[in-house]
Amino acid sequence: MDLARSPLARPFPAMPAISGVTLRVARARYKNWDRADLTLAELTPGTAVAGVFTKSACASSEVELGREQARLGSARALVVNAGNSNAFTGYRGREAVEQIMAQVAEALDCQPSEVFVSSTGVIGVPLPRDKARAGVEAALTAQPCGWEEAASAIGTTDTFTKGAAASAMIGNTRVELAGIIKGSGMIAPDMATMLGYVFTDASVEPAFLQEMLSRANDASFSCITVDGDTSTSDTVLAFATGKAGNAPISSWDDAGADAFYAALLDVCRELSHLVIRDGEGAQKFIAITVTGADSDASARRVGLSIANSPLVKTAIAGGDANWGRVVMAVGKAGEPADRDRLSIGFAGTWAARDGQPLPDYDEAPVAKHLEGQEIDISVDLGIGEGRATVWTCDLTHGYIAINADYRS
Amino acid sequence: MDLARSPLARPFPAMPAISGVTLRVARARYKNWDRADLTLAELTPGTAVAGVFTKSACASSEVELGREQARLGSARALVVNAGNSNAFTGYRGREAVEQIMAQVAEALDCQPSEVFVSSTGVIGVPLPRDKARAGVEAALTAQPCGWEEAASAIGTTDTFTKGAAASAMIGNTRVELAGIIKGSGMIAPDMATMLGYVFTDASVEPAFLQEMLSRANDASFSCITVDGDTSTSDTVLAFATGKAGNAPISSWDDAGADAFYAALLDVCRELSHLVIRDGEGAQKFIAITVTGADSDASARRVGLSIANSPLVKTAIAGGDANWGRVVMAVGKAGEPADRDRLSIGFAGTWAARDGQPLPDYDEAPVAKHLEGQEIDISVDLGIGEGRATVWTCDLTHGYIAINADYRS
Repeated sequence: MDLARSPLARPFPAMPAISGVTLRVARARYKNWDRADLTLAELTPGTAVAGVFTKSACASSEVELGREQARLGSARALVVNAGNSNAFTGYRGREAVEQIMAQVAEALDCQPSEVFVSSTGVIGVPLPRDKARAGVEAALTAQPCGWEEAASAIGTTDTFTKGAAASAMIGNTRVELAGIIKGSGMIAPDMATMLGYVFTDASVEPAFLQEMLSRANDASFSCITVDGDTSTSDTVLAFATGKAGNAPISSWDDAGADAFYAALLDVCRELSHLVIRDGEGAQKFIAITVTGADSDASARRVGLSIANSPLVKTAIAGGDANWGRVVMAVGKAGEPADRDRLSIGFAGTWAARDGQPLPDYDEAPVAKHLEGQEIDISVDLGIGEGRATVWTCDLTHGYIAINADYRS
Repeated sequence: MDLARSPLARPFPAMPAISGVTLRVARARYKNWDRADLTLAELTPGTAVAGVFTKSACASSEVELGREQARLGSARALVVNAGNSNAFTGYRGREAVEQIMAQVAEALDCQPSEVFVSSTGVIGVPLPRDKARAGVEAALTAQPCGWEEAASAIGTTDTFTKGAAASAMIGNTRVELAGIIKGSGMIAPDMATMLGYVFTDASVEPAFLQEMLSRANDASFSCITVDGDTSTSDTVLAFATGKAGNAPISSWDDAGADAFYAALLDVCRELSHLVIRDGEGAQKFIAITVTGADSDASARRVGLSIANSPLVKTAIAGGDANWGRVVMAVGKAGEPADRDRLSIGFAGTWAARDGQPLPDYDEAPVAKHLEGQEIDISVDLGIGEGRATVWTCDLTHGYIAINADYRS
């Protein structure tokens, strides 16, 4: 199925080269298509790595292995296969991943555990080992390419190519961050259904890189949802080559740690928003801010209950300021709430306060706001200090059209 | 919006009169329509009552009051308002309910706490007290009517009228059960979004009636989902008039208790299935049976994770035997599972066993099965003895069409 470019798409941004990272793509032809579908990022020796992965109980071999590898902290390469997720394929799937790890490790003279593999696409078909072998061989000798080409090669049902960049000062050294991501459906908290990669030339100790990535994930990828469905392959990896030459950072007390984290969060948040902007069938980008909750975590769960409600999402699709459905979604969240302290608003206008509609509520500006592409919903629970913002998209006929015949 | 009758609709069944129950309807005109929208069931003195209610933290005044009233165990009347849910309307909403309770109590010479009120419709608009008063007045003096008329009057977006009946022997006495229900959207576990009422002429102690209703609810209304959304008004009430003259039953040890429970479960299950058959936009009725789970409760949660997955529901809508999406939904359920012991099948044919696709899996009979209206999905987790069946419908363009402009 050829999909129209999302109306919420962003142009691919200018992205800096990251010293110590070499990108190459190849045609493994995992599906019957003529496009690059295997991406290889070669990383300089000494590159630190951190990762966050799907919490699915049915995770793919790539995820199982990647989780163990990330704990070791060292990376020399990343291989991303598009078109076949290799999930739910038993020992045959695992052997395919191990073959890729061994092949790349031999070529780069490194440990197999330093070769990270991700796969995305249909579930239940073992990754064909012959195609993988030929694809890796071709990628190892291909001309290096840029970010946009790599970001395009990792995509599947994506309707636009997604990247984000930032920079930070660590002491007197400027460091660069560049991230790419794929994803548009099967997107939910506990990691959206997506593969995302952030590369930096900064020098960061692996354990601290992991701490920062996990924290950034909590405020970005774990706060988005398209459909409440969580993939078996979700992965975000961060690679730090150290080529910028800054004094290595290893704790929040180090100079530049806060600045680097802010840049990392910027990139993660922008990447997560781009996934929502490519949400299947999305016509509107929705930000839901929950305040006054029992805790930040509770606020996020309430936000995700709203963001995953088909009735809220269809109301927004229809441009309907149906705050009653938001009440419903707060009520079903299973989190501390008090009906008679609950307030709900759109774009700064309260529709209901303290458990009742406002008598002088003027729906006209809200209706106008809902005609746009960027929707803000505010919910105040009125019982505590917890707060969170989550992001989603509307639920439209496009979602049904895409998903009622994806596999066929 | 005028909705076409669901293709999964059932004809309204033959239903027995229940001695001690008198039904009447009236036009309160809660909306700008010309139809009966207020239903009054008058119950003979001594009628026992039990109820199960939404777990929403934002429940309506009807639910708050009903929960307290049901604990007292005695009922003389039920009033159902259609077109306005009276939810999230603060003290004004509560006053409207109390007015109805007082008005009916005076007419029937009973306690206000014996008058049960339910309301369904738009959220956030206080029930208009003048319309309610005139409607109740008209209902009190109207000609008695039958089940179908009452079942029709409690409906809102329902596309067909829903009822179910059963009978049982308690000792030598035949007792009758008759139930009606409304609901088609905002349907999820912890009570579907719906109002359901079961009437019987059996004599049952209120506490035991409550125990049986709660148990039946666990295996019927709490096992269905249309969209994962839970209403602020969900209510199921059971009324036992005692007019059949059986020896009152008050425990599982009493003669006929098991037979009565079986009949009650039959009615509850059939009513819950009718709601799914009227699920917004539903084209297919889906039964999902989960076996081999850690416990029955865990099996139900896994089943509901599958039943609420937009990706599974759209695949079924498209007639696609996409068992990979079922794997995904099992994985995200957050319940004990082992990828390599998981098996998935359709209509008795396993597509995957023990974590891998079956090499000789023949999709042809499954594809044929998926063309029909009644879909069976089997999931075996392979780790325990827990089992459950849940029911849902597919997710179609019809759901989007209905919900993107319901309120306008």
